Amino acid sequence: MHRSRLAGFIIDCRTTDVDGAARFWSAALGMATESLPGPEGDSYVKLVVPGERLHVEVQAVDHDSRVHLDIEADDVEAEVERLETLGAKRVKNVHSWTIMEAPTGQRFCVVRPQNKGFEQDANVWK
Amino acid sequence: MHRSRLAGFIIDCRTTDVDGAARFWSAALGMATESLPGPEGDSYVKLVVPGERLHVEVQAVDHDSRVHLDIEADDVEAEVERLETLGAKRVKNVHSWTIMEAPTGQRFCVVRPQNKGFEQDANVWK
Repeated sequence: MHRSRLAGFIIDCRTTDVDGAARFWSAALGMATESLPGPEGDSYVKLVVPGERLHVEVQAVDHDSRVHLDIEADDVEAEVERLETLGAKRVKNVHSWTIMEAPTGQRFCVVRPQNKGFEQDANVWK
Repeated sequence: MHRSRLAGFIIDCRTTDVDGAARFWSAALGMATESLPGPEGDSYVKLVVPGERLHVEVQAVDHDSRVHLDIEADDVEAEVERLETLGAKRVKNVHSWTIMEAPTGQRFCVVRPQNKGFEQDANVWK
Protein backbone atom coordinates (compact mmCIF):
# COMPACT_ATOMS: atom_id res chain seq x y z
CA MET A 1 0.00 0.00 0.00
CA HIS A 2 1.25 3.48 -0.84
CA ARG A 3 -0.21 6.94 -1.40
CA SER A 4 0.25 9.57 -4.13
CA ARG A 5 -1.35 12.70 -5.57
CA LEU A 6 -0.65 15.65 -7.83
CA ALA A 7 1.90 17.79 -5.97
CA GLY A 8 2.24 20.85 -8.16
CA PHE A 9 3.77 22.41 -11.22
CA ILE A 10 7.29 23.56 -11.96
CA ILE A 11 7.86 26.37 -14.45
CA ASP A 12 11.20 25.37 -16.03
CA CYS A 13 13.00 28.38 -17.48
CA ARG A 14 16.10 28.16 -19.68
CA THR A 15 18.06 30.85 -17.87
CA THR A 16 20.94 31.37 -15.46
CA ASP A 17 18.89 34.14 -13.75
CA VAL A 18 16.27 32.26 -11.76
CA ASP A 19 15.40 35.40 -9.77
CA GLY A 20 14.66 37.34 -12.96
CA ALA A 21 12.49 34.49 -14.25
CA ALA A 22 10.67 34.31 -10.92
CA ARG A 23 10.07 38.09 -10.98
CA PHE A 24 8.14 37.73 -14.23
CA TRP A 25 6.03 34.80 -13.02
CA SER A 26 5.44 36.40 -9.61
CA ALA A 27 4.11 39.56 -11.28
CA ALA A 28 2.19 37.66 -13.96
CA LEU A 29 0.40 35.41 -11.46
CA GLY A 30 0.19 37.94 -8.61
CA MET A 31 1.96 35.56 -6.21
CA ALA A 32 4.70 36.41 -3.73
CA THR A 33 8.04 34.63 -4.06
CA GLU A 34 9.73 32.66 -1.30
CA SER A 35 13.42 31.86 -1.47
CA LEU A 36 14.39 28.27 -0.72
CA PRO A 37 17.29 27.55 1.61
CA GLY A 38 20.58 25.91 0.69
CA PRO A 39 21.66 24.77 -2.77
CA GLU A 40 18.00 24.34 -3.77
CA GLY A 41 17.73 28.14 -3.68
CA ASP A 42 20.26 28.45 -6.51
CA SER A 43 17.91 26.76 -8.98
CA TYR A 44 14.39 27.14 -7.54
CA VAL A 45 12.15 29.99 -6.35
CA LYS A 46 8.82 29.09 -4.77
CA LEU A 47 5.65 31.00 -5.68
CA VAL A 48 3.22 31.30 -2.78
CA VAL A 49 -0.15 29.89 -3.92
CA PRO A 50 -2.82 31.41 -1.63
CA GLY A 51 -4.98 28.83 0.11
CA GLU A 52 -3.89 26.02 -2.17
CA ARG A 53 -2.31 22.71 -1.48
CA LEU A 54 -0.36 22.57 -4.75
CA HIS A 55 3.12 23.99 -5.06
CA VAL A 56 4.23 26.15 -7.96
CA GLU A 57 7.94 26.80 -8.41
CA VAL A 58 10.17 28.51 -10.96
CA GLN A 59 13.29 26.50 -11.84
CA ALA A 60 16.39 27.47 -13.84
CA VAL A 61 17.21 24.71 -16.34
CA ASP A 62 19.63 24.19 -19.23
CA HIS A 63 17.08 22.58 -21.57
CA ASP A 64 14.22 24.28 -23.42
CA SER A 65 11.71 26.13 -21.25
CA ARG A 66 8.55 24.22 -20.36
CA VAL A 67 6.13 23.48 -17.53
CA HIS A 68 6.23 20.07 -15.84
CA LEU A 69 4.13 18.51 -13.12
CA ASP A 70 5.15 16.66 -9.97
CA ILE A 71 3.41 13.69 -8.35
CA GLU A 72 4.15 13.29 -4.63
CA ALA A 73 4.29 9.81 -3.11
CA ASP A 74 5.15 8.30 0.27
CA ASP A 75 6.90 5.45 -1.60
CA VAL A 76 8.58 6.89 -4.69
CA GLU A 77 9.69 3.50 -6.05
CA ALA A 78 6.24 1.93 -5.66
CA GLU A 79 4.66 4.92 -7.40
CA VAL A 80 7.18 4.74 -10.26
CA GLU A 81 6.33 1.06 -10.73
CA ARG A 82 2.57 1.83 -10.68
CA LEU A 83 3.07 4.50 -13.35
CA GLU A 84 5.19 2.11 -15.44
CA THR A 85 2.25 -0.30 -15.55
CA LEU A 86 0.16 2.62 -16.93
CA GLY A 87 2.68 3.11 -19.76
CA ALA A 88 5.05 5.76 -18.37
CA LYS A 89 8.82 5.31 -18.68
CA ARG A 90 11.49 5.86 -16.06
CA VAL A 91 14.00 8.43 -17.39
CA LYS A 92 16.40 9.07 -14.50
CA ASN A 93 16.70 9.02 -10.72
CA VAL A 94 17.89 12.38 -9.30
CA HIS A 95 18.49 12.74 -5.55
CA SER A 96 15.25 11.59 -3.89
CA TRP A 97 13.04 11.86 -6.99
CA THR A 98 12.54 10.11 -10.32
CA ILE A 99 12.05 11.77 -13.70
CA MET A 100 9.51 9.95 -15.88
CA GLU A 101 7.99 10.35 -19.34
CA ALA A 102 4.25 9.92 -19.90
CA PRO A 103 2.96 7.84 -22.83
CA THR A 104 1.53 11.17 -24.05
CA GLY A 105 5.05 12.64 -24.21
CA GLN A 106 5.40 14.98 -21.23
CA ARG A 107 8.20 14.67 -18.70
CA PHE A 108 7.13 14.71 -15.05
CA CYS A 109 8.66 13.88 -11.65
CA VAL A 110 7.72 11.58 -8.78
CA VAL A 111 8.81 13.28 -5.55
CA ARG A 112 8.47 12.74 -1.81
CA PRO A 113 5.41 14.30 -0.08
CA GLN A 114 5.75 18.08 -0.13
CA ASN A 115 2.41 19.69 0.67
CA LYS A 116 0.08 19.82 3.64
CA GLY A 117 -2.88 17.48 3.69
CA PHE A 118 -1.03 14.62 2.01
CA GLU A 119 -1.94 12.00 4.62
CA GLN A 120 -5.64 12.89 4.46
CA ASP A 121 -6.11 13.58 0.76
CA ALA A 122 -3.70 11.43 -1.24
CA ASN A 123 -4.96 8.51 -3.30
CA VAL A 124 -4.30 5.11 -1.72
CA TRP A 125 -3.00 2.38 -4.06
CA LYS A 126 -3.05 -1.29 -3.06
CA MET B 1 -9.42 48.09 -12.69
CA HIS B 2 -9.49 44.39 -13.53
CA ARG B 3 -8.87 41.07 -11.78
CA SER B 4 -6.82 37.98 -12.66
CA ARG B 5 -5.29 34.88 -11.13
CA LEU B 6 -3.79 31.50 -12.03
CA ALA B 7 -6.67 29.44 -13.42
CA GLY B 8 -5.12 26.04 -13.95
CA PHE B 9 -3.00 23.80 -16.11
CA ILE B 10 -3.70 22.14 -19.42
CA ILE B 11 -1.93 18.90 -20.31
CA ASP B 12 -1.51 19.22 -24.10
CA CYS B 13 -1.15 15.81 -25.74
CA ARG B 14 -0.18 15.29 -29.38
CA THR B 15 -2.87 12.73 -30.15
CA THR B 16 -6.19 12.27 -31.92
CA ASP B 17 -7.37 10.10 -29.00
CA VAL B 18 -8.07 12.59 -26.22
CA ASP B 19 -9.98 9.96 -24.22
CA GLY B 20 -6.99 7.62 -24.26
CA ALA B 21 -4.69 10.43 -23.17
CA ALA B 22 -7.12 11.38 -20.40
CA ARG B 23 -7.30 7.75 -19.23
CA PHE B 24 -3.54 7.78 -18.56
CA TRP B 25 -3.59 11.11 -16.70
CA SER B 26 -6.73 10.19 -14.76
CA ALA B 27 -5.08 6.97 -13.55
CA ALA B 28 -1.70 8.60 -12.97
CA LEU B 29 -3.12 11.44 -10.86
CA GLY B 30 -5.98 9.47 -9.30
CA MET B 31 -8.56 11.99 -10.54
CA ALA B 32 -11.92 11.25 -12.12
CA THR B 33 -12.59 12.55 -15.61
CA GLU B 34 -15.51 14.74 -16.61
CA SER B 35 -16.57 15.06 -20.25
CA LEU B 36 -17.20 18.58 -21.50
CA PRO B 37 -20.31 19.35 -23.53
CA GLY B 38 -20.42 20.40 -27.17
CA PRO B 39 -17.45 20.79 -29.52
CA GLU B 40 -15.18 21.48 -26.52
CA GLY B 41 -15.63 17.80 -25.60
CA ASP B 42 -13.91 16.73 -28.83
CA SER B 43 -10.59 18.24 -27.74
CA TYR B 44 -10.73 18.53 -23.94
CA VAL B 45 -11.36 16.21 -20.99
CA LYS B 46 -11.55 17.75 -17.52
CA LEU B 47 -9.81 16.11 -14.56
CA VAL B 48 -11.68 16.59 -11.29
CA VAL B 49 -9.28 18.19 -8.79
CA PRO B 50 -10.64 17.40 -5.30
CA GLY B 51 -11.19 20.49 -3.16
CA GLU B 52 -9.10 22.71 -5.40
CA ARG B 53 -9.94 25.88 -7.20
CA LEU B 54 -7.57 25.24 -10.10
CA HIS B 55 -8.68 23.39 -13.20
CA VAL B 56 -6.64 20.64 -14.82
CA GLU B 57 -7.60 19.48 -18.30
CA VAL B 58 -6.22 17.12 -20.92
CA GLN B 59 -6.27 18.57 -24.45
CA ALA B 60 -5.62 16.91 -27.83
CA VAL B 61 -3.25 19.10 -29.88
CA ASP B 62 -1.38 18.83 -33.18
CA HIS B 63 1.88 20.31 -31.88
CA ASP B 64 4.42 18.68 -29.54
CA SER B 65 3.06 17.53 -26.19
CA ARG B 66 3.58 19.91 -23.27
CA VAL B 67 1.89 21.42 -20.21
CA HIS B 68 0.69 25.02 -20.32
CA LEU B 69 -0.90 27.26 -17.74
CA ASP B 70 -3.97 29.48 -17.95
CA ILE B 71 -4.51 32.86 -16.30
CA GLU B 72 -8.18 33.79 -15.83
CA ALA B 73 -9.21 37.45 -16.04
CA ASP B 74 -12.48 39.39 -15.97
CA ASP B 75 -11.03 41.67 -18.70
CA VAL B 76 -8.91 39.53 -21.03
CA GLU B 77 -7.65 42.48 -23.09
CA ALA B 78 -6.60 44.50 -20.02
CA GLU B 79 -4.78 41.45 -18.64
CA VAL B 80 -2.99 40.84 -21.96
CA GLU B 81 -1.83 44.46 -21.95
CA ARG B 82 -0.63 44.18 -18.32
CA LEU B 83 1.35 41.04 -19.21
CA GLU B 84 2.82 42.78 -22.27
CA THR B 85 4.25 45.47 -19.99
CA LEU B 86 5.93 42.62 -18.03
CA GLY B 87 7.60 41.37 -21.22
CA ALA B 88 5.16 38.73 -22.49
CA LYS B 89 4.16 38.68 -26.17
CA ARG B 90 0.71 38.25 -27.68
CA VAL B 91 0.75 35.23 -30.03
CA LYS B 92 -2.85 34.81 -31.17
CA ASN B 93 -6.46 35.48 -30.22
CA VAL B 94 -8.59 32.28 -30.28
CA HIS B 95 -12.34 32.50 -29.54
CA SER B 96 -12.59 34.29 -26.17
CA TRP B 97 -8.95 33.75 -25.10
CA THR B 98 -5.48 34.96 -26.05
CA ILE B 99 -2.37 32.82 -26.43
CA MET B 100 0.77 34.53 -25.09
CA GLU B 101 4.47 33.73 -24.77
CA ALA B 102 6.36 34.50 -21.56
CA PRO B 103 9.79 36.18 -21.68
CA THR B 104 11.02 32.88 -20.20
CA GLY B 105 9.76 31.01 -23.27
CA GLN B 106 6.58 29.17 -22.21
CA ARG B 107 3.29 29.57 -24.04
CA PHE B 108 0.27 30.30 -21.82
CA CYS B 109 -3.33 31.51 -22.24
CA VAL B 110 -5.38 34.36 -20.81
CA VAL B 111 -8.96 33.11 -20.45
CA ARG B 112 -12.25 34.32 -18.98
CA PRO B 113 -12.96 33.44 -15.31
CA GLN B 114 -13.50 29.68 -15.01
CA ASN B 115 -13.25 28.65 -11.37
CA LYS B 116 -15.19 29.30 -8.19
CA GLY B 117 -13.92 31.95 -5.83
CA PHE B 118 -12.66 34.24 -8.59
CA GLU B 119 -14.46 37.36 -7.31
CA GLN B 120 -13.11 36.89 -3.78
CA ASP B 121 -9.60 35.65 -4.46
CA ALA B 122 -8.34 37.13 -7.73
CA ASN B 123 -5.63 39.78 -7.74
CA VAL B 124 -6.92 43.29 -8.39
CA TRP B 125 -4.88 45.42 -10.84
CA LYS B 126 -5.35 49.18 -11.08
